[in-house]
Amino acid sequence: MESIIGIDVGGTTVKIGKFQNGKCVDTLVLDTDLSDKGNTIIPSIIQATKDFTIGETIVGIGIGLPGPVVNGRLLAAHNLGLVNVDAQKIFETAFPKAIIRITNDANAATLGEQKKGGGMGYRDLVFVTLGTGIGGGVIIQDHLLEGYTGSAGEIGHIRVDFNNKRKCTCGLYDCVEEYASATGIVKTALEKIETLQIKTMLIEERITSKYIFDCAKAGDILALQVVEDMVEKLATALSQIANTINPQAFVIGGGVSKAGAFLLDRLQKRFNELAFFSVRDTAFHLAKLGSDAGMYGCCAMIEEAILSK
Amino acid sequence: MESIIGIDVGGTTVKIGKFQNGKCVDTLVLDTDLSDKGNTIIPSIIQATKDFTIGETIVGIGIGLPGPVVNGRLLAAHNLGLVNVDAQKIFETAFPKAIIRITNDANAATLGEQKKGGGMGYRDLVFVTLGTGIGGGVIIQDHLLEGYTGSAGEIGHIRVDFNNKRKCTCGLYDCVEEYASATGIVKTALEKIETLQIKTMLIEERITSKYIFDCAKAGDILALQVVEDMVEKLATALSQIANTINPQAFVIGGGVSKAGAFLLDRLQKRFNELAFFSVRDTAFHLAKLGSDAGMYGCCAMIEEAILSK
Repeated sequence: MESIIGIDVGGTTVKIGKFQNGKCVDTLVLDTDLSDKGNTIIPSIIQATKDFTIGETIVGIGIGLPGPVVNGRLLAAHNLGLVNVDAQKIFETAFPKAIIRITNDANAATLGEQKKGGGMGYRDLVFVTLGTGIGGGVIIQDHLLEGYTGSAGEIGHIRVDFNNKRKCTCGLYDCVEEYASATGIVKTALEKIETLQIKTMLIEERITSKYIFDCAKAGDILALQVVEDMVEKLATALSQIANTINPQAFVIGGGVSKAGAFLLDRLQKRFNELAFFSVRDTAFHLAKLGSDAGMYGCCAMIEEAILSK
Repeated sequence: MESIIGIDVGGTTVKIGKFQNGKCVDTLVLDTDLSDKGNTIIPSIIQATKDFTIGETIVGIGIGLPGPVVNGRLLAAHNLGLVNVDAQKIFETAFPKAIIRITNDANAATLGEQKKGGGMGYRDLVFVTLGTGIGGGVIIQDHLLEGYTGSAGEIGHIRVDFNNKRKCTCGLYDCVEEYASATGIVKTALEKIETLQIKTMLIEERITSKYIFDCAKAGDILALQVVEDMVEKLATALSQIANTINPQAFVIGGGVSKAGAFLLDRLQKRFNELAFFSVRDTAFHLAKLGSDAGMYGCCAMIEEAILSK
């Protein structure tokens, strides 16, 4: 049986999926091997993939890496300690008979959601992942947009405040991920507890973004204000994106999106107020594949490569 | 001799260019006929084009219209009084032997600058036109991005302040065109004259954006502050765009861009400070075709259509 392998490389785990006839038939999850300054990461993934597919025919391997990728070259993945790695060549040498495609991890997840998840049926969409940070990917006319330096979809760093209030890990101020990621929402809640001094169900020591959303759903005034603030900032960023590329749909994923329709409805409503009148007709969907999206997207890259042969 | 016709339809004038072997050999400029609620505009353009090309072979006609266009249909052009017009069909009926292509006027100018102007050699660029308002266009992988509702490139309505200070003609607040268009710059100057009360060469009655830039170049402190404010707002909007689609180049046109390197250098410098680290390597160029850009772009649409036949 012929298989396609999809490999989603993250800072803590590597997910390897085996796909047959478009279906994921087996998965393997490894801890990311960060020993020896990252030098062992790729060799360890290659070895694990070989062990995982002994005696099988591998048609192609799609790989998602956590950093900007241009033409198969990883420019940098600081959390892995990797800089300027020709991943395309390394995998082609290790698997000479397989088609190899490399992309950024957020791009892979975007493709996964478009092919099998919340973005099915759309040729032009923007995927937004709300996790510890905010990442994203852009699909235009059914093609993943890589960007000139592999950085299309870095939407977490759209600026949504001009008071230099919160410094982002990227060095800039007031990036949307400082306000609308899981970490950002917690920051806002702690700020509001401190400054508003109103009655709230939120207990400082226990605060997570999920807990904030749960309290907001239960009607807690302070938690609702935190959600409103998050929605304001994210809707602002999405309206900037829509004014620029006018996509058909936004697909919202990542841990924070588990707040579901409670978040999505508010987000779409505020987006409709903030976006330019002629781009308001943008659909909003929740992502469906969770942390498997990258793996599915990696498989989809190979399916596309086969089709376009 | 075979000709291609490029028609750039604006709110006050219509520019018709005749192209042979890629060169503009003749032009005709008409006043836009706004009589009878806009009903006469298209018929008058068709008649003028026929008179302009009597006895000649017209291979194709490209038309740029001042509103969102999807698949040849003009969704709305409020300044012309036109709503939901199937321009493609109307022109095809009038010129049954010619290839017809319709796009938005800013998109046409974008294509013109890419093919023959400041954006030559770039496959991925964003054109920004700084005039009375701010318009723009996006080219990705050598293709003009139309957008789901014909509104890609509506970058004049990116929000760059959050204090609801200036209401835009679009109904939203603090769109970048309220600060960085010719009109926006004048507003800022008048505000600063009023509030700063410092010595300035600027005389209130004479203020235009050109005059402000001239005074800034001559070292006028207040005018320099106006320019700095404009640059801050525009660089902010451009960094949002770059974080989203990571283009190779920005091409800056429109009347305000006549300030030249004085504006462009400041803009690129501030952009480099505000954009996400991995998208800073974006080139900046001045547009070259002035108000002819649209006409050239309309011709280019037909050349592309012929090539892709």
